Amino acid sequence: MVEASLAALSPAELRSAIRSGDYGGRTPGLALGYVQANLVVVEQDDAFDFLRFCVRNPAAAPVLEVGEPGDPRIAQLARDSDIRFDLPRYRVFEEGVVVAETEDIEAYWRDDLVYFLLGCSLTFEAALLDGGVPLRHLESGSAVPAYITNVECTPAGRFQGPLVVSMRPVPGDLVARAVSITERLPAGHGAPVHIGAPEALGISDLAAVDYGEPPNVEPGDIPVFWACGVTPQAIAEHVKLSFMISHAPGHMYVTDVRSDSHSLQAPDASCGY
Amino acid sequence: MVEASLAALSPAELRSAIRSGDYGGRTPGLALGYVQANLVVVEQDDAFDFLRFCVRNPAAAPVLEVGEPGDPRIAQLARDSDIRFDLPRYRVFEEGVVVAETEDIEAYWRDDLVYFLLGCSLTFEAALLDGGVPLRHLESGSAVPAYITNVECTPAGRFQGPLVVSMRPVPGDLVARAVSITERLPAGHGAPVHIGAPEALGISDLAAVDYGEPPNVEPGDIPVFWACGVTPQAIAEHVKLSFMISHAPGHMYVTDVRSDSHSLQAPDASCGY
Repeated sequence: MVEASLAALSPAELRSAIRSGDYGGRTPGLALGYVQANLVVVEQDDAFDFLRFCVRNPAAAPVLEVGEPGDPRIAQLARDSDIRFDLPRYRVFEEGVVVAETEDIEAYWRDDLVYFLLGCSLTFEAALLDGGVPLRHLESGSAVPAYITNVECTPAGRFQGPLVVSMRPVPGDLVARAVSITERLPAGHGAPVHIGAPEALGISDLAAVDYGEPPNVEPGDIPVFWACGVTPQAIAEHVKLSFMISHAPGHMYVTDVRSDSHSLQAPDASCGY
Repeated sequence: MVEASLAALSPAELRSAIRSGDYGGRTPGLALGYVQANLVVVEQDDAFDFLRFCVRNPAAAPVLEVGEPGDPRIAQLARDSDIRFDLPRYRVFEEGVVVAETEDIEAYWRDDLVYFLLGCSLTFEAALLDGGVPLRHLESGSAVPAYITNVECTPAGRFQGPLVVSMRPVPGDLVARAVSITERLPAGHGAPVHIGAPEALGISDLAAVDYGEPPNVEPGDIPVFWACGVTPQAIAEHVKLSFMISHAPGHMYVTDVRSDSHSLQAPDASCGY
């Protein structure tokens, strides 16, 4: 499938191409204008603690949808979609370690698994670009840098450990605008958690990334840090969680929800919203 | 204790007076400027489904804090506080029916209970008054009218049933302002779920309330409906939930969080927020 035709696919068409095996690559830049989501699957015994973890740490893990235990169908964010097949690539964790990377999770799905779809930064990156805030990692074609911090997430049951942040260098005169734009997107990690002093987060060298690639910082840029959706995976590693499935980096779940949808202000809102 | 001294108490002093038995009345109008919360306590077996219900119906049940199973201590919204003693009055439900109304729940607390504190409308009512929007039920000294609607909440496990809404008559030229003010308070039920046509919600007679007291509607007032924190109790009755504890109407949990706090935008936010 050629790039141009890929980019023109609707979310449903893209998920269909992924499900059939016609596409297995990364999703940023595809189905533009639609929300993409991080995936976390845990065992039912861990599901209440994990959901409480998300609620207590909404910047890192903004909840968009939670499945019924054992049910792989998407109820709210997309039509005719199955979490087992509709992401291009998955990672399977056991005891906090990646034990498999697969194109579907049919062989791993069980009646006691629960999926969580969490907001991701692609939504706010599109909004920043629209607002005239440059994104250095896109300019240089590299992955966004992310760091494990010395900030502890608020624990919930067995889920505890450090916050992971992504960093985007922003010209000083646009930092306030970057805050204004992203604080309106709580379903996409919201406002920055820190601006300006990496050492306050325990980051001594911005080039020494824990995830992604080292940043390209232009003169006059200020480092701006947002809570990162990798946090749940880092937590799973930290506590050696017995079982978890996630998307593979950059291989996100593509929803039918438009990025500018009001429902993003109140994810999964119902009751007449 | 006289009224004037009551109103001057800080949240911690008020909770202390409640815990010692010095005060057992309603909380609206007390500890002004601080968030008050609805209480729901369920059994651990129901806790994951109930939390998913809240996440799926954030207008009706905005989550402020969720306890650890079996632990009655408040972790985030207040210091030195115990959910068993610090509300002036509680209701105990069995099979969806109120079986007791008590001044503490020490005798009912068990190791498998989990408390939920949910946003309540007192926060947005204060904001409406500050914004110049009159509140007719306060003018007439009556309880806010609330109705069981024909709108189904998004179900989660065993939790399913109708949305309950509160209604406040608002002069037509102030309806837009009422929307603007309340949409910024998602932790206090957020924007109205319906404006103007009670029959669209299945309400044929505004005088026939399901909770509270009939409204006082002035000429030119438009009925404005917000999702109501009574919804979880109505759901418990609807599905005949085996066990639940709630606050008694008007006898709320008083937190140490200021109503104008940024944390209300992202309740329980942590990780550097």
